[in-house]
Amino acid sequence: MYDRLKGFRDFYPDEMTARREVIDTVETAAARYGFREIGTPTLEATELYTDKSGDEIVDQLYNFTDKGGRDVTLTPELTPTVARMVVAKQQALSKPIKWYSTRAFWRYEQVQQGRFREFYQTNVDIFGSGEPTADAEILAFAAEALTDLGLTSDDFEFRVSHRDLLGGLLEAFDADVDTEAAIRAVDKSAKIDDQEYYGLLQDAGLRYEQAETFDELLGTDDLNDLVDFADTERVADAVANLEAVLAAADDLGVREYCDVSLETARGLDYYTGVVFECFDSTGEVSRSVFGGGRYDDLIESFGGQPTPAVGVAPGHATLQLLCERAGVWPEEAPATDYYVLSVGDTQAVAADVARQLRGRGHVVETDIAERSFGAQMNYADSINAETVVIVGERDLENGEVTVKEMATGDQTTAPVDDFPGDLERPTYEDWA
Amino acid sequence: MYDRLKGFRDFYPDEMTARREVIDTVETAAARYGFREIGTPTLEATELYTDKSGDEIVDQLYNFTDKGGRDVTLTPELTPTVARMVVAKQQALSKPIKWYSTRAFWRYEQVQQGRFREFYQTNVDIFGSGEPTADAEILAFAAEALTDLGLTSDDFEFRVSHRDLLGGLLEAFDADVDTEAAIRAVDKSAKIDDQEYYGLLQDAGLRYEQAETFDELLGTDDLNDLVDFADTERVADAVANLEAVLAAADDLGVREYCDVSLETARGLDYYTGVVFECFDSTGEVSRSVFGGGRYDDLIESFGGQPTPAVGVAPGHATLQLLCERAGVWPEEAPATDYYVLSVGDTQAVAADVARQLRGRGHVVETDIAERSFGAQMNYADSINAETVVIVGERDLENGEVTVKEMATGDQTTAPVDDFPGDLERPTYEDWA
Repeated sequence: MYDRLKGFRDFYPDEMTARREVIDTVETAAARYGFREIGTPTLEATELYTDKSGDEIVDQLYNFTDKGGRDVTLTPELTPTVARMVVAKQQALSKPIKWYSTRAFWRYEQVQQGRFREFYQTNVDIFGSGEPTADAEILAFAAEALTDLGLTSDDFEFRVSHRDLLGGLLEAFDADVDTEAAIRAVDKSAKIDDQEYYGLLQDAGLRYEQAETFDELLGTDDLNDLVDFADTERVADAVANLEAVLAAADDLGVREYCDVSLETARGLDYYTGVVFECFDSTGEVSRSVFGGGRYDDLIESFGGQPTPAVGVAPGHATLQLLCERAGVWPEEAPATDYYVLSVGDTQAVAADVARQLRGRGHVVETDIAERSFGAQMNYADSINAETVVIVGERDLENGEVTVKEMATGDQTTAPVDDFPGDLERPTYEDWA
Repeated sequence: MYDRLKGFRDFYPDEMTARREVIDTVETAAARYGFREIGTPTLEATELYTDKSGDEIVDQLYNFTDKGGRDVTLTPELTPTVARMVVAKQQALSKPIKWYSTRAFWRYEQVQQGRFREFYQTNVDIFGSGEPTADAEILAFAAEALTDLGLTSDDFEFRVSHRDLLGGLLEAFDADVDTEAAIRAVDKSAKIDDQEYYGLLQDAGLRYEQAETFDELLGTDDLNDLVDFADTERVADAVANLEAVLAAADDLGVREYCDVSLETARGLDYYTGVVFECFDSTGEVSRSVFGGGRYDDLIESFGGQPTPAVGVAPGHATLQLLCERAGVWPEEAPATDYYVLSVGDTQAVAADVARQLRGRGHVVETDIAERSFGAQMNYADSINAETVVIVGERDLENGEVTVKEMATGDQTTAPVDDFPGDLERPTYEDWA
């Protein structure tokens, strides 16, 4: 026997049925907003990551040298790939560019609940608009994907902030601050105690009292406090932008899912504007479910024209944790419209009945293992067949088949020449 | 600028729209037969391939050592993975096991038309039935997937044979034959001339006259010739099995797509029974489009209980070549139900109209880039919007929006309070 690799998963049909329903729901929500599906490679040149990303990502790459001597990497995230694709066809593509895709990514890291070495995300991005309505559309898609899954405002919240707000506030202190280090500290603040947090802020260049003040400012309910404290155009603009995004989210009917939360900073350095993270409102799923935000500098850093961008990437492992917590994870079981049971020398008729039902678009199984009546009934039950059509030798002599409703056990006969006849979805009721 | 890797592809939305339609069509055909989707890892332990497969596959692997020291491989095919999965849950799984999945695979080989280093297949397999009806169901699924794509019996043919037929015939010669080498020679016969073919058969152990006789036998129209020549149970059984599969295919309505062709042998050594390959009937696509067959020994070789198996794996690159040749490749263009155009300070109303249309399940785009009327119209045109709803300041003062049918250019006004109102899919016609 062979084992699968640690951190990788096999999805058998029951679980896959539920996953597929969730992926379809998320993708359908994206499609309704006019996002278009793209397909992307599994491998990229390693330099696509080493040139740009922080060291913490590089250490986790599945990278290797291929048989042609190229240093290649299993894509750990989609953003560098879509940046490469946007740059390659920047002139030809109609703007705004709105793309989505669902696929696996790979990082060599510690396996834990909801975190695997092979993990799946639906990436949804807009390139070519810096307007607040674009940020709001990303928030609206994400909220609608979750409500389409059955989640409500009692289940999840988007903690929304703005990267310039943190940067702008830090700038306003009389200190030589490493902004990115300070933002990384904010990003970790929920997971560490105050003393460790203040320590990290001090490492980033703030004095202890400044770290306290900074922490207080981030906790305020009134964004004007920030504008007043900083007294800079940068902070005033960031507050105005954040408020415009929230107003546009209100127009799209999703304001109720958004809470301003300045501690939300996203770990990745490439974010530039509004950022947000989705959290379980009950806190039972303790980690961020997923996040997104604006990254206006990325395309240019990949050699393209300056192109504003905003996106979000729901991860399916944490999304599953949230759905399970809220009791909306789909049933993990197959669905089958018909099982056509063949007893005796009736295979040709059974095959024809099955063929006609499939021709109407139904999911139909029939005997392909020459099994007994009982074994076929057990199998029909195991696949949750709604209706079993029994094609038996004796019934056929009378020109009939038996139609059995599995939920109730009720059964009746129907003329084989009329089955399915003109009916789109014949059931027990039609002949009872 | 960064380049993508050679042999790997980016699929932009236009092309992806067509690919998705084809993949959905193939998967829907599989689902109608009761095949269930599974999800499988991208990486496996390299020994999953090195222990079993022929050297020609091993040379083409994308294999490497991961950061934990494991020798791992990007899966070059699905069969070893599903074999591993079947063995892991053999007792728990209800039989027959009927699985499908569409995903990428990787082989480091020469890139040519319709052949890439990253390539996509829909694998469809049945485990746990050795009956001819199971082989026929695989043929029926494959034929139906192709006819659902718009292909006809003028476009494609399944060349069907049986591995025991070749093995049985070879056995009947008075010679010490390396059967697998001879079958590989048959598999190549269409691509090489007779002298090279006979040479390979001689390398496999046949004398020259025997090679000629063997070649003649494979060309016969009457399978009884083979039974008579060999005079063995093995050949008689193989002919009977092949005929039973074709009779079952007839019951399922797909006999017309099947031609008996004994030269069809499939390159992989693990096939054991009926094998088939799909070819372009016009010969314009010169390569096999895809193939499949029975492989009853594989599960046992992976440490499982003896489990008969049969499957097929349409490859999407060659399938695209066939569809394009036959003129049935789907249109490569986005589809959009509505573009909601906002002019002046009408964003809130436009957002609400868009929200209501999306609530009815439509694909709706709206302005997220603060663009002019003309720029928005051009964009609506570029995304093939069927209907444009113009939300302008002046119209709104009269409580109206303008509804424009893009195909004709016809437009009229509609009361904003009634749009979309009770209508599921409001169009120009509703107010003209």
